[in-house]
Amino acid sequence: MVSIVLIGTGNVSKHLFDAFILSTEISILQVVGRNIKALEYYKNRSNIEHDFSKIANADIYIIAVSDDAIAEVSTSLIDKKGLVVHTSGSVSMNDLSNPRKGIFYPLQTFSKEKKVDFKTIPICIEAEKEIDFTLLKKVAETLSNQVYKISSEQRKSIHLAAVFVNNFTNHLYHIGNKICAENQVSFEILKPLITETAQKVESLPPIEAQTGPAKRNDSETIERHLSQLKNKDYKDLYTLLTKSIQDAHGKKL
Amino acid sequence: MVSIVLIGTGNVSKHLFDAFILSTEISILQVVGRNIKALEYYKNRSNIEHDFSKIANADIYIIAVSDDAIAEVSTSLIDKKGLVVHTSGSVSMNDLSNPRKGIFYPLQTFSKEKKVDFKTIPICIEAEKEIDFTLLKKVAETLSNQVYKISSEQRKSIHLAAVFVNNFTNHLYHIGNKICAENQVSFEILKPLITETAQKVESLPPIEAQTGPAKRNDSETIERHLSQLKNKDYKDLYTLLTKSIQDAHGKKL
Repeated sequence: MVSIVLIGTGNVSKHLFDAFILSTEISILQVVGRNIKALEYYKNRSNIEHDFSKIANADIYIIAVSDDAIAEVSTSLIDKKGLVVHTSGSVSMNDLSNPRKGIFYPLQTFSKEKKVDFKTIPICIEAEKEIDFTLLKKVAETLSNQVYKISSEQRKSIHLAAVFVNNFTNHLYHIGNKICAENQVSFEILKPLITETAQKVESLPPIEAQTGPAKRNDSETIERHLSQLKNKDYKDLYTLLTKSIQDAHGKKL
Repeated sequence: MVSIVLIGTGNVSKHLFDAFILSTEISILQVVGRNIKALEYYKNRSNIEHDFSKIANADIYIIAVSDDAIAEVSTSLIDKKGLVVHTSGSVSMNDLSNPRKGIFYPLQTFSKEKKVDFKTIPICIEAEKEIDFTLLKKVAETLSNQVYKISSEQRKSIHLAAVFVNNFTNHLYHIGNKICAENQVSFEILKPLITETAQKVESLPPIEAQTGPAKRNDSETIERHLSQLKNKDYKDLYTLLTKSIQDAHGKKL
């Protein structure tokens, strides 16, 4: 049995907690957070603590707080013998000031409202010491079938790539939604296309899945689309994305 | 029984054909195309014809050819009594020179390799005459549960929105793939995130599903990401998408 103290009460913490308490190999000793109200989520299923000087002793401390609070929280654990890890995609392992340190980064977008299946969520792990890596791997594999050994450099690039395929993609959905709304068309009509676009790259590299006026160098359609767009940012985005697609597909200039 | 002549031999034609021949209410009389080799796909299941002066008489002629060939193909049908429709998202209904005309626009991305379930594909229909609209609606409903009455103006906006949520989104997947590859990380690691990002907007408006450094105004992460990007277009895209997200979320400047 591996004992864990979970620090932080945001979405990542909640989803990790809900997954860990189902595991027979993991024991969540305590959930620690400043926000007493947020701790209520855990209180019937674990010990809760809002005083950072009263953190229990455990095998692993998982810091699931906002990026800019990680370094400070890790100093509350300076005297602990266990392994200290954080869950951030972009914060360096060396921001942790503990003798035993590592990373436990689940690559997914977590919302309060939506349950996730941890089995399919990639977990990127890293540890300074081999023995700690082995421990983290064991813990990660109780949750997920996709556990990756990822260096801090690689993790930062994954985090950047994730911004493109998640945050920026979602914003393109928003633009699609706005264009529809301005023309009294329901966003529903775009949903099957959104689903299929995502499903396609399960089996096809995105470069091969590319279609559309930019790929075809269909300048007439491109011009018409640009004239339809009133918002200057959307126009600029259309132009830049079109150019980037054409570059990727080796348009002869 | 509604009789149909299908003109064109590309992906849209093939997918429509495969769906129509399963319908007991539709009879595909003939498939017409210039490309004799492409016609082989249909030959054991329908009549095929490459001579445009020998098009059979039918209730409906569906022109599924590239946008710039639609007007010309429609002139081959000038003496026909049936309803002439095309399947394009961006070509005007008035580009058809026939007395009975309409639109039959399935909103999906079709590839040669991948089967689609037509039941879930939105079909946007339009016709000049009420009686033709009723006929088209009947035909569309044999294929899909999502049939929409859409004007030419609305259709053009849907086509534009589709470029954002499909073509441009796929290009963001490509950028994510490239960033991973440059850092010896498998694209596999991004796939669950891509799926979840698409699934989220099934139940949540994209504006509410937005997360990430742009949304949080996390300028430290934004700066670090920009310094990681070497490709100038990707850098410009990152900057512009970040600005557009911040505008959508009312960043105080």
